Amino acid sequence: MKLTIERAALLRALGHVQSAVERRNTIPILSNVLLSAERDRLIFSATDLDMEIVDEAAAQVDQPGQITAPAHTLYEIVRKLPEGADVSLSFTGEDPRLTVQAGRSRFNLPVLPAGDFPVMSSEGLSGAITIDVTDLIRLVDKTRFAISAEETRYYLNGLYLHTVVEDGTQKLRAVATDGSRLALADMPAPEGAAGLPGVIVPRKTVGEARRLLEDAGENVELQISPQKVRFAFNGAALTSKVIDGNFPDYSRVIPKDNTRSVQVDAKLFAQAIDRVATISAEKSRSVRLAFEPGKVVLTVRNMEAGQAVEELEIDYDGDAFELSFNARFLLDITDQISGDTAELRFGGPNDPALVLDPADGFVQYILMPLRV
Amino acid sequence: MKLTIERAALLRALGHVQSAVERRNTIPILSNVLLSAERDRLIFSATDLDMEIVDEAAAQVDQPGQITAPAHTLYEIVRKLPEGADVSLSFTGEDPRLTVQAGRSRFNLPVLPAGDFPVMSSEGLSGAITIDVTDLIRLVDKTRFAISAEETRYYLNGLYLHTVVEDGTQKLRAVATDGSRLALADMPAPEGAAGLPGVIVPRKTVGEARRLLEDAGENVELQISPQKVRFAFNGAALTSKVIDGNFPDYSRVIPKDNTRSVQVDAKLFAQAIDRVATISAEKSRSVRLAFEPGKVVLTVRNMEAGQAVEELEIDYDGDAFELSFNARFLLDITDQISGDTAELRFGGPNDPALVLDPADGFVQYILMPLRV
Repeated sequence: MKLTIERAALLRALGHVQSAVERRNTIPILSNVLLSAERDRLIFSATDLDMEIVDEAAAQVDQPGQITAPAHTLYEIVRKLPEGADVSLSFTGEDPRLTVQAGRSRFNLPVLPAGDFPVMSSEGLSGAITIDVTDLIRLVDKTRFAISAEETRYYLNGLYLHTVVEDGTQKLRAVATDGSRLALADMPAPEGAAGLPGVIVPRKTVGEARRLLEDAGENVELQISPQKVRFAFNGAALTSKVIDGNFPDYSRVIPKDNTRSVQVDAKLFAQAIDRVATISAEKSRSVRLAFEPGKVVLTVRNMEAGQAVEELEIDYDGDAFELSFNARFLLDITDQISGDTAELRFGGPNDPALVLDPADGFVQYILMPLRV
Repeated sequence: MKLTIERAALLRALGHVQSAVERRNTIPILSNVLLSAERDRLIFSATDLDMEIVDEAAAQVDQPGQITAPAHTLYEIVRKLPEGADVSLSFTGEDPRLTVQAGRSRFNLPVLPAGDFPVMSSEGLSGAITIDVTDLIRLVDKTRFAISAEETRYYLNGLYLHTVVEDGTQKLRAVATDGSRLALADMPAPEGAAGLPGVIVPRKTVGEARRLLEDAGENVELQISPQKVRFAFNGAALTSKVIDGNFPDYSRVIPKDNTRSVQVDAKLFAQAIDRVATISAEKSRSVRLAFEPGKVVLTVRNMEAGQAVEELEIDYDGDAFELSFNARFLLDITDQISGDTAELRFGGPNDPALVLDPADGFVQYILMPLRV
């Protein structure tokens, strides 16, 4: 293998694939990136066995070939090379290492054979569905905060991507929950999405896909099988196993009969929660909300750290009632509200609360109150 | 105690003093800030028993008095209050807590009696010496990176501030060393500095003083005793114990006979070191420098991660020689060079190297080579 490539193109492609590589690996080749030089391009591939990222860049290939080299080291070297440099990569019989050369810098990196590099099959994947990049970014950003980190409930450690029919309309939906809160975001189903299997996309894959979406141009191609999901962006592609489990039937927890509707200024409400939560104990972070016509009183009491009380004007004219919430969870939700106002819908003191964004009819948030 | 104060003034003063307070304290009152309201101002005091920071702010005092309250909590609350708010602080017989009120927010914080708050005596301190703030910032910034973190050599865990006479001139000098490297910065001695005892200012005090210097205006007043140092800035004051030990006689390690003088482009040299060090093992980070007329070759060899070689043009016309250095330590020094060029003066292969900044004749850096 022997080729020359612009530093910027090399850095971009390595940047895309290298974060799939775990810092510590018991299998040495998983620390490496597979480099495949052919015709007029260099193809990059990195994997952690659960997920594979592939990208490519234009290159002047003098001698095609394949080799694997340490991904993070190669990325760091290229990052530190001067802007505008031309980088030559070569792996020939003369030296049993990959030579990276630019200007008067020369690096020799240990390699492992390309034939040993694990390649993820894309067997069984559906035909490609085209999704607008900004739509997919919205689905991810509005929901990923609620993905559970509890390993015992592995089926909640991802984003549930599936289609539903509601009011006669096909929707593509993302749902995440950790049992205490749930976030749901919809978009009109793209062509070809109907009837696809629902998949639970693992947290790490969601993060990597979100990162790659930044550079993805206008559209992303999505393919799904019951075992895998594949995102193709503007030359790069991310293929990942999905979580082998059943996502719970979340529709049962979406409150239908929450009749107490409260409108709050989302920003002032978030600031008030944040202030009173200064006093809350690290763990429970419990804030008590007492609603009455025209106002809510936020209270935090903590044996050690004291007490905080704050009042806020709201739009509400029903009966008085009180509930307690985890302040952090409430802030995670208010952070997602895109308009000035948030609508909170409450039922009884132990019923889940529904939070809506009047500026975005395609999202719903559910939060369980704390039992006090 | 009862007073009203502008949020901005309160935040600024609390910000100055609160970082003296350690996160965890076995003595509860050390988590608190002492608030003393008198006439038209509020005085703030915080301490960790080794260091005390005092500041003050204008306030409308309705009832003078003193109390202590949790420093970090109070700071966080004030930080989260809306800009432009007026904050009222009151501690009266009615409530055994400090009440903090602003707009429709009210906080009640636990207190401890002001009489129990430890106050640091300023006994024995010298008369005040006036130092230009930018000069003192320079002394600190050029040297603090070399302060040792090794607790067994406690007398190196600070910045040695003292006066010397060189070439018939009085100088105020800061020196830091960890045994492998040494940084020295001078300034013309301010009036009254001659004959003051040298003091080792502890690392934490150096950091806090550096932070307070940002807000200090033009001049800082320095007072010294064999046990203590005091910096007074624009209303705020930092009093600290100094390290009770003898700073080693560093003058013996400053090489006088390093005849091999090399001029390098400081930025290109730093970038080259950084690049080849990508390959170095985490611990030793050894980089080999081979000098010959007109060029230096930087080499890193690592059994696992490969090899890096880079050439750089230099201004040197002596004999060829080689040395190895810790790449991190070398970069710490090149980071300090203020001009385009760094001058390196070498002796034999095991002699300490001297690094000079031709644009700043008041600094000297010494670095021990690694034995290979």
